Amino acid sequence: MCELLGMSANVPTDILFSVTGLMQRGGRTGPHTDGWGVAFYEGKGLRLFQDTQPSAHSEVAELVQRYQIKSELVIGHIRQANVGDVCLANTHPFIRELWGHYWCFAHNGQLKEFNPPQSFYRAVGATDSERLFCDLLNRIRQQFPEPVEVEQLLPLLTQACAEYQAQGVFNCLMSNGDWLFSFCSTKLAEITRRAPFGPAHLKDADLSVDFHAVTTPHDIVTVLATEPLTEEETWTRHPPGTWVLWRQGVSVARGQISSSPP
Amino acid sequence: MCELLGMSANVPTDILFSVTGLMQRGGRTGPHTDGWGVAFYEGKGLRLFQDTQPSAHSEVAELVQRYQIKSELVIGHIRQANVGDVCLANTHPFIRELWGHYWCFAHNGQLKEFNPPQSFYRAVGATDSERLFCDLLNRIRQQFPEPVEVEQLLPLLTQACAEYQAQGVFNCLMSNGDWLFSFCSTKLAEITRRAPFGPAHLKDADLSVDFHAVTTPHDIVTVLATEPLTEEETWTRHPPGTWVLWRQGVSVARGQISSSPP
Repeated sequence: MCELLGMSANVPTDILFSVTGLMQRGGRTGPHTDGWGVAFYEGKGLRLFQDTQPSAHSEVAELVQRYQIKSELVIGHIRQANVGDVCLANTHPFIRELWGHYWCFAHNGQLKEFNPPQSFYRAVGATDSERLFCDLLNRIRQQFPEPVEVEQLLPLLTQACAEYQAQGVFNCLMSNGDWLFSFCSTKLAEITRRAPFGPAHLKDADLSVDFHAVTTPHDIVTVLATEPLTEEETWTRHPPGTWVLWRQGVSVARGQISSSPP
Repeated sequence: MCELLGMSANVPTDILFSVTGLMQRGGRTGPHTDGWGVAFYEGKGLRLFQDTQPSAHSEVAELVQRYQIKSELVIGHIRQANVGDVCLANTHPFIRELWGHYWCFAHNGQLKEFNPPQSFYRAVGATDSERLFCDLLNRIRQQFPEPVEVEQLLPLLTQACAEYQAQGVFNCLMSNGDWLFSFCSTKLAEITRRAPFGPAHLKDADLSVDFHAVTTPHDIVTVLATEPLTEEETWTRHPPGTWVLWRQGVSVARGQISSSPP
């Protein structure tokens, strides 16, 4: 299995603290040693750092942890391979362009023998995760050749999640740089930080931060993770079947789908 | 204007030396201070480093110059903006997926008012360069919905290059990880290094390399650049209208198109 990390914020935010926690689980405090990736939206641009080395020992991961990237939307992933070799083409998150935006996707879980028909978007690597992403985008493009608001996509997205969930484990994060969509089939936790901000301490490294010192009273920052990243804070675990649409740090739509096939 | 860098080799090759030369031109020995990017193919995967900072002073560029990435195919670019703000979405090289491969593209030049009809691939940023790349891919996909060998694409590619060249300056590099296609409308130079390897010294930095010490007798490495990167080596400048298809370090097809509109 793998672990996911997501962030949605209403101001460009330094996610270094959370990324540092996640990276420890790639070889130090966790077994996810088969590569990692973090994508940071910068406006409509998307900056992707990836490596096939365990994140706890990766030179690129060291750079990411030193580099003060601020973003309103981040998707990260550390991998413990079950399908597909350890190679760059199999490393999450995956990126495709749709409607003039970069869409980004990371998956935690496994679907056995997921082989949808070949269509427009095709997997480059050998993971079920990338095939799932391509299938989602192909469904969207087929139904909506021209851009629509994400709210209009929700029935399609939740229907697809229900189908995927019925075939295996499907926790995912997806974004187009404007919104972040999360789906929990088995495991995903959230925390929203806003004023009054307090201190937090990483579970996986001896690192603390006083969010009060690095924020303004208007900042709202939501972090999503497969397993809570901090101690002394209250994370909310999503019940299986929960989907959420996030924008600028807050949940703007949320629902629950049944775990049985639709 | 901008500067291009390309490499095609028959073994995974460290392009650090050439990248270091190019990076100096982004703010130290040259005026291309509006960002830079280098894409390295690793198998079917593609590793992209980009920054909006001048390459001579960029923290990410420092990492790339320290990091021992070996690749058989590299496309790099330093930018001096003429169309589009300095932002990540306007930074070359650009990437799209076609037929289950990542295609990568960088452009040096400018086409005035290049606004092809909206189709499948759409620009995320505001550059004519990204619109050109999308137009190329849209033409390919329209004519060939299913994969064909690159040799079958050559008439389409050279026809498109002739049209673009008639509308402005269009020097470009494009690859799908297997081959590298180059087109020179005004300025592009090549050098192919093979046994017996000798020494070379960068024009733009006090850095020398003895290629004999870091290669085997079977290695073949071609480097393409807008302006020759080394002294004491013989680079060949392409005449305007020259296109070349490179594979594993050698030119496998080459031709010349007229500079007048077709």
